[in-house]
Amino acid sequence: MKITIACAQIQVEPGNPEANTKKALAYLEKARAQQADIVLFPELTIPGYLLGDLWEQNAFLRDCEAWGKELIAASKDLCIVFGNIALDPEKINEDGRIRKYNAAFVAQNGKLLHGGLPYPFISKTALPNYREFDDGRYFHSTTKLQLELPGTPSLKELLQPVAVTIRGQEVKLGIMLCEDGWTENYYYNIPQLLKQNGAQLLCNISCSPYTFHKNVKRHRIFAAQAKECGIPLVYCNSVGVQNNGKNIFTFDGCSTFYSADGQSRSDAPAFQETLLTAQFDPAARQLELNKAPEPEFSDAKEIYTALHYGASQFLKQIGLQKMTIGVSGGIDSAVTAAFYVDILGADNVLLANIPSRYNSSVTKNLAQQMAQALGTRYVIIPIQEVVDKTIEQLGQTPIHNYATGEDSKLTITPFATENIQARDRGARVIAGLAASFGGGFSCNSNKAEMTVGYATFYGDIAGVLALLGDLWKHQVYALGHYLNEEVFHKEVIPEQIFTIKPSAELSEAQTVGNGGDPLVYPYHDFLFRSFIEDWYKTSPEDLLGWYLEGTLEEHLGCAPGLVKELFPTPQAFIADLERWWKNFCGLAVAKRIQAPPILTISKRAYGYDHREAQMKPFYSRKYQEMKAKALSGANS
Amino acid sequence: MKITIACAQIQVEPGNPEANTKKALAYLEKARAQQADIVLFPELTIPGYLLGDLWEQNAFLRDCEAWGKELIAASKDLCIVFGNIALDPEKINEDGRIRKYNAAFVAQNGKLLHGGLPYPFISKTALPNYREFDDGRYFHSTTKLQLELPGTPSLKELLQPVAVTIRGQEVKLGIMLCEDGWTENYYYNIPQLLKQNGAQLLCNISCSPYTFHKNVKRHRIFAAQAKECGIPLVYCNSVGVQNNGKNIFTFDGCSTFYSADGQSRSDAPAFQETLLTAQFDPAARQLELNKAPEPEFSDAKEIYTALHYGASQFLKQIGLQKMTIGVSGGIDSAVTAAFYVDILGADNVLLANIPSRYNSSVTKNLAQQMAQALGTRYVIIPIQEVVDKTIEQLGQTPIHNYATGEDSKLTITPFATENIQARDRGARVIAGLAASFGGGFSCNSNKAEMTVGYATFYGDIAGVLALLGDLWKHQVYALGHYLNEEVFHKEVIPEQIFTIKPSAELSEAQTVGNGGDPLVYPYHDFLFRSFIEDWYKTSPEDLLGWYLEGTLEEHLGCAPGLVKELFPTPQAFIADLERWWKNFCGLAVAKRIQAPPILTISKRAYGYDHREAQMKPFYSRKYQEMKAKALSGANS
Repeated sequence: MKITIACAQIQVEPGNPEANTKKALAYLEKARAQQADIVLFPELTIPGYLLGDLWEQNAFLRDCEAWGKELIAASKDLCIVFGNIALDPEKINEDGRIRKYNAAFVAQNGKLLHGGLPYPFISKTALPNYREFDDGRYFHSTTKLQLELPGTPSLKELLQPVAVTIRGQEVKLGIMLCEDGWTENYYYNIPQLLKQNGAQLLCNISCSPYTFHKNVKRHRIFAAQAKECGIPLVYCNSVGVQNNGKNIFTFDGCSTFYSADGQSRSDAPAFQETLLTAQFDPAARQLELNKAPEPEFSDAKEIYTALHYGASQFLKQIGLQKMTIGVSGGIDSAVTAAFYVDILGADNVLLANIPSRYNSSVTKNLAQQMAQALGTRYVIIPIQEVVDKTIEQLGQTPIHNYATGEDSKLTITPFATENIQARDRGARVIAGLAASFGGGFSCNSNKAEMTVGYATFYGDIAGVLALLGDLWKHQVYALGHYLNEEVFHKEVIPEQIFTIKPSAELSEAQTVGNGGDPLVYPYHDFLFRSFIEDWYKTSPEDLLGWYLEGTLEEHLGCAPGLVKELFPTPQAFIADLERWWKNFCGLAVAKRIQAPPILTISKRAYGYDHREAQMKPFYSRKYQEMKAKALSGANS
Repeated sequence: MKITIACAQIQVEPGNPEANTKKALAYLEKARAQQADIVLFPELTIPGYLLGDLWEQNAFLRDCEAWGKELIAASKDLCIVFGNIALDPEKINEDGRIRKYNAAFVAQNGKLLHGGLPYPFISKTALPNYREFDDGRYFHSTTKLQLELPGTPSLKELLQPVAVTIRGQEVKLGIMLCEDGWTENYYYNIPQLLKQNGAQLLCNISCSPYTFHKNVKRHRIFAAQAKECGIPLVYCNSVGVQNNGKNIFTFDGCSTFYSADGQSRSDAPAFQETLLTAQFDPAARQLELNKAPEPEFSDAKEIYTALHYGASQFLKQIGLQKMTIGVSGGIDSAVTAAFYVDILGADNVLLANIPSRYNSSVTKNLAQQMAQALGTRYVIIPIQEVVDKTIEQLGQTPIHNYATGEDSKLTITPFATENIQARDRGARVIAGLAASFGGGFSCNSNKAEMTVGYATFYGDIAGVLALLGDLWKHQVYALGHYLNEEVFHKEVIPEQIFTIKPSAELSEAQTVGNGGDPLVYPYHDFLFRSFIEDWYKTSPEDLLGWYLEGTLEEHLGCAPGLVKELFPTPQAFIADLERWWKNFCGLAVAKRIQAPPILTISKRAYGYDHREAQMKPFYSRKYQEMKAKALSGANS
């Protein structure tokens, strides 16, 4: 006998149990209409996942429990698997608050079915505490429970499949929650334990955020799991956008049925609500797939799709429908502008070009050409008059010293003048325009700038969302090409914007014609990526070591020959390395602390995903020895 | 035979193993000079504690290990107990990175002594994952190790005291790391297990941040622990300032020897490096104390001392010696100004009064009087001209719509005008002054304003440090009185600043003479405190319930009669509650995400201590039912 399994890839709204329950009930009806026998919903279907410390609010927890009961009550004549918070008011978590489990409930005909726990639910065993994940802060795990239970039962005893009877036939579901299926770094293997305990179908319900190329890894891991266990696997993930303050995460869904041999699959499209079904034959342990696999995206399409979904949903959540964007004629603001026109419509976007005397006619014209090509709203607000007035006020107003009775005046340096321009643009003009146009304004900083704080506090590192804050400069260029070619099908971002030298245009020295940015992106993009995205957090010790052994380009993934070209001597290499490392560990941390939320794409984004303290830059003793040797060698 | 125990309450610099090792070596010599037999250093002596994801950098970890070896090598003829990171390169943490323990090392004559683990160190068992603590993100715990070890040994088997031989006599030290001594919410009791295994002296090495009144609790808990175990206890805590980005934490030390009966103690002063010693008679299990207990501080003195230490040390760490402060003539900026004059000296402080047309001569005069009384630097920068110019530029510059070919203009509302003033003050004037004066500028926001976002983005919620960001308005007033009376011994903050109605002075309606702030601090301070500081995160459901049963003032701790006076009807109460709750959960979260770091004092501060997501405000179903009933009852 074949049974129909439905995987409800629904959009979960964080912190809104009412909306999520109603959404689940609606999908339950859809599944019923398709004669589903078992319907899976994602991990934490009812509360959502990234809620911060709302997990400590008892009224919220009780409300989630109450909504969960409505879903349980709706399980007449079929079986529902869904995620919710599970409370044990008799016990406490290690923080002293009420005992909470991140749990899967299996309900049939209004009753809960048990696995191997002394509770009517399955609790998550593997609690991730890395990147953005804080599961250990909120949830008690099966392994902690294990140590509390009399006789310390083994994990295998506790991880029993749930036996469901469908039209008289028993089916054993091996239920896991998200990380339970990613235990290559844990000392236990949950799918294997479930299989050994008789599971006929592995069910992984997840609330798993999107990361660039993560879905490829998911398919590899889950297909291998199915194959190793010799039973099919169904992966049910939510879609939606959730955040933890500093980072906005998208949830891509990509729910999938994997055949028992790991060879075939049927999957749901990314970032869309869907009901995906398959027929399962428990006796033969075979799946009959109803849908062909989704096509793989190009890198540019993948990034574009995630950003598009993330930004649209996030703005909807915070109630913004309009965006003001300062456009300099450079690539970051150009891509940002085109992107918001794409998601909000040209009528809801205001582009502002805000020149001082240092802005060239080249970039001013490019900004205007782009506004024209996008068919959007455009305003030019020159700032030189107010900048001059500011310099005069700050530099000419006497400061009275009440201790000495003397007056003095401040000296306004060229560097201070650069920042005065940036703040005048951001805090005076753009913030003011946005407040009156409605909606918010955009932060156009990219990840290379975020890395070293190449931005002005309350100037350009400001806004409601750092759309490109997790993209390296070369990814920004690629996204720009994608927007022109695949989204707008015309050159909305003028070609010259891709080819001019990036420049802040804040002084005579820093112009499109002259010096440009101090960052050489084809090198620094990759150097900086190693600071943050490398698994073991690459340090100056590693970098100098690779430089000295001639493997730096290979390690960083930048173009061969570039290092020699940029740094003729070890001195030059070390000076550049320390300049940016000092910024990365120092002032840039201070700037990131006050930076806007970043839409997260990579395997490591600034913000809550990469936690940091303001400290002195760290150089290991080994680094210092290598450096001394390299410099003395160079001198001899 | 008596042995001398020394407790080295040293200042630990986060992320600087070299400086910390050298400091420990210097204190080791001091202890040697006092004939110490056993010298205790704090938890994580070498790396520091709040380091963010620097814990993932292998070069840093190896460096800490190497510096630890120097400390071990220095243990000739005495016994050292110190905290460091311990690595097991053969194993991994659950995140896949190298296995790390937060460990205590016991060294004597260059050799490490074992406890009950298969390692030459004691690992922390209780890993806190609440408030600012993220131990589970970085460290593997003894309980996780327990489950991996063959035969799953009991915790008691693993928690063996360390036997040290001092002049031929064996002494068994029961070593704990910080939270191991605070296990009232865990299912095990570590001091008891150590005692049962033969410990003669409990040693708790900690890196425990200061919280208001925490030391009173520490004394209560540790004295009780000594008494229950019937053996003395020594608590060794570090001093210093560490941060995790959004929060600055002070470490107060307060290291203490507790007698076996819990009746007497000898303790180190708060926030000072000290070497505290006592004589211990292992046979009699008696301590001979060398110093009388420290006197208890008043609440105001405690807060002043923590802020003074925290701000001084933090500014030193980030290399700032000067501060610019916008002074309005109101209490928050007045207290901030006096405070920075206290810690940096009058010559290093620049006070700026930045009036628009709405600032009264009353407050302008008060600001000036204060600058005079403080004998500091003072400047007046009027902003009306640039504010008017901004309103003109934003409202009169035509916006061209490239889709329609039409031009339009923005309307600048009075509300937008208020924010234009605030940003002009903060981002244009104060940030500009600070850049040229040198150093940073101060964020003067208090905790009530932080709670509901009663501040302007890039205006007044900006700066290097929110000194008062964890103080309620009534605490700010109290600190002001303390500064006048106990620090300056004269009225540096004019009396009238304490008595005028708080007002933002941003419009005709909002002036000192007219409306003033929409917050009624004697009520809202306490309402807001319940939002964030209450153990179970008080929600509208709880608050409305208390209001309806007449126990709200009692629950909040505000003055009796106030609620009735402010809210004659349930409608009025609910409208006020929802107004601020919506802000608290909504726009205020967005503002806190971009707020400056907060110097943390309370048991729950905004920032990393209280993690939050941007979400819709949550109202439980029960709240909605109660509200409907209360409103219909009122209508009938």
